[in-house]
Amino acid sequence: MTLADPPLDAPPDAAGRVLCRREGAVARVCLSHPGRMNAITVAMWRELARLFQALSVDRTLRCVVVQGEGGHFAAGADIREFPQARGDMASVVRYHREILAPALAAIESCPHPVVARINGVCVGGGLEIACQCDLRIAARTARLGAPINRLGFPMAPDEMRGLLKVAGHAVTLELLLEGRILQAEEACAKGLLTRVVDDAELDGEIERCVGRVLAGAPQAAQLNKRMAARLSRGEPLNDEEYRRFFSYAESPDHREGVRAFLAGEAPTFTGDWKE
Amino acid sequence: MTLADPPLDAPPDAAGRVLCRREGAVARVCLSHPGRMNAITVAMWRELARLFQALSVDRTLRCVVVQGEGGHFAAGADIREFPQARGDMASVVRYHREILAPALAAIESCPHPVVARINGVCVGGGLEIACQCDLRIAARTARLGAPINRLGFPMAPDEMRGLLKVAGHAVTLELLLEGRILQAEEACAKGLLTRVVDDAELDGEIERCVGRVLAGAPQAAQLNKRMAARLSRGEPLNDEEYRRFFSYAESPDHREGVRAFLAGEAPTFTGDWKE
Amino acid sequence: MTLADPPLDAPPDAAGRVLCRREGAVARVCLSHPGRMNAITVAMWRELARLFQALSVDRTLRCVVVQGEGGHFAAGADIREFPQARGDMASVVRYHREILAPALAAIESCPHPVVARINGVCVGGGLEIACQCDLRIAARTARLGAPINRLGFPMAPDEMRGLLKVAGHAVTLELLLEGRILQAEEACAKGLLTRVVDDAELDGEIERCVGRVLAGAPQAAQLNKRMAARLSRGEPLNDEEYRRFFSYAESPDHREGVRAFLAGEAPTFTGDWKE
Repeated sequence: MTLADPPLDAPPDAAGRVLCRREGAVARVCLSHPGRMNAITVAMWRELARLFQALSVDRTLRCVVVQGEGGHFAAGADIREFPQARGDMASVVRYHREILAPALAAIESCPHPVVARINGVCVGGGLEIACQCDLRIAARTARLGAPINRLGFPMAPDEMRGLLKVAGHAVTLELLLEGRILQAEEACAKGLLTRVVDDAELDGEIERCVGRVLAGAPQAAQLNKRMAARLSRGEPLNDEEYRRFFSYAESPDHREGVRAFLAGEAPTFTGDWKE
Repeated sequence: MTLADPPLDAPPDAAGRVLCRREGAVARVCLSHPGRMNAITVAMWRELARLFQALSVDRTLRCVVVQGEGGHFAAGADIREFPQARGDMASVVRYHREILAPALAAIESCPHPVVARINGVCVGGGLEIACQCDLRIAARTARLGAPINRLGFPMAPDEMRGLLKVAGHAVTLELLLEGRILQAEEACAKGLLTRVVDDAELDGEIERCVGRVLAGAPQAAQLNKRMAARLSRGEPLNDEEYRRFFSYAESPDHREGVRAFLAGEAPTFTGDWKE
Repeated sequence: MTLADPPLDAPPDAAGRVLCRREGAVARVCLSHPGRMNAITVAMWRELARLFQALSVDRTLRCVVVQGEGGHFAAGADIREFPQARGDMASVVRYHREILAPALAAIESCPHPVVARINGVCVGGGLEIACQCDLRIAARTARLGAPINRLGFPMAPDEMRGLLKVAGHAVTLELLLEGRILQAEEACAKGLLTRVVDDAELDGEIERCVGRVLAGAPQAAQLNKRMAARLSRGEPLNDEEYRRFFSYAESPDHREGVRAFLAGEAPTFTGDWKE
């Protein structure tokens, strides 16, 4: 059972998996739990963490797309596991701090741009995953929310942080206090989504988005991600941080970008660069 | 006189009051200053603080609705009192730090979900009150703003904080530097409102909103509010804070929520719980 | 060459300048680089810093409008200068920290309200300038973005801070990772703009906006700007900061604002006031 209505014909023991397919410089991470709207099991959270840790150190990668299999992004954590996996206080703490938090942190700290391809149901843990991605592109019929107030518990701190970063204080509390499910357009107006397209346009827009990311220099993307996270901490940068940041200046891609622009050519970025 | 045009037939000495009506687990707080569009007097600010302090410790309460009487939310602080109540620097400081700030702080720190029902004029101090509520639902003809630049003074720090939290830096400065009055739709697009409905739908939507809040577990709502406020401070949580947060795991409502969900039943939450 | 397509008939050595015209209490700062869509040269960044430092200490000033000459706001930094002005790491650091950062800081710290009048192309450094203004009013056909990922480098920290303040984490990364150019309406929906008007209405709306600013007390505007910046730092104010803030209470304009309001008259603000 998940936060959305489960299909009655779902095989109760269909196994959940996180699949990863590599296409050139792009990795497709797929949440897959057939018949369960990709409800995320403990095994899937762990695999998600392991997978993103591996993708993060892959220097040939340029972009990651996270998606769900079969019409939905993800219906949240698999609640059927709760009595066993988070039945008392010790296991609740373990579940949130040692299983969910590391998976979300692994996505957040991925140095490559991460795009969420959102369709169908994207609630609870599914929304938490989407909020750790850099770009959230949704089909118009997608539904988003975090109706966990009906389950009797609040959103864990390391999960709420992602919503706050993306949508701010007021929208985060709106989602959690009312437990309402939002259509994609409303979610987008509230800042939860990067953009919304017609369902038939979703894959095309994802490809265009990935194409735009790939047209840029990889280290520029990585430094932009790292600096945006760093600046949100508020304290001024020290000289060593400035120096490390600006070390890109000696990279081949920086020289190539300016050269190509002035020559009126398309740049060819290699990603070769070491701080 | 208020920041909006006062009706000419207003009795100059109509008394302002803050009324509170209890309906089961819901408290209705009503700003009432007849003929003055609920302009908020010193006595009303003090009553608002006192009232919210009392509501905050009421463990049988589940939701608070703040509204105005007779077609308006509130037209701001009662400026007729200014010559006497804030005529020199000492009284200006006292007015803002010892009268307004505690009232706004009492709303902000209320552990129960607080919904603002906004219609008519919601400006100045009225908007400041609305920004301390968790949800702001407005009628389409509502008007919002903070045109105090025409009064020759800036918004006090403890008042501005609420606007910054809800609408951010750019929108807060837009409101204060231009002193423009926004229609509800524009205010909503800028993040100042949770949602806008047709005037005839306002009470219905407030009931639905309250119903959604009441369908959730009380302690989940309280922990979500507290944690959203805590996380906005930026510093990492320590282990004791995590432990206190996750102590909900042993509550009857947490067990009931998961049990009911897995049984396909509606949960019955009691709110019985002690950290 | 700039981040947008340069017109072919541009004289390659047209000089860029920053012009300033004074009209009563309003200063018009104009980015002017004819035939180059106002691409901003090193000399222009320096002049911008110098100019805003001078405007900042001018106590007779009440509002600043920043605009571009001839159909565009600004097409970003002048990339033709890059091989010479930021060719190696030392000069890259110098360019961003000693040339761009001080110009942006001078706009940000200007005590007077600053309005950006945005039309045509507003990208890269042009967008960075706009984000340091208090209000951003754009023509419907304006285009905004920061497509520097194609140039092989990331946005410098002191430049990114302005985007984060105005549009938040998610929108800033969207702009930088995709390098997409947004139409004004989309940029406004994402919080990058204060408002969008038809092209033919742009000058009229700028005048109305300036008129609204001028209708307020100058010190109220300055204190609002300063306090919004101060509160974004998070730490509580100390008593001395409160005392300095509330010292406006003894100003003639404060007394005039309340007096005029209660008398039903339009106030006459002088700006005479010393903390």
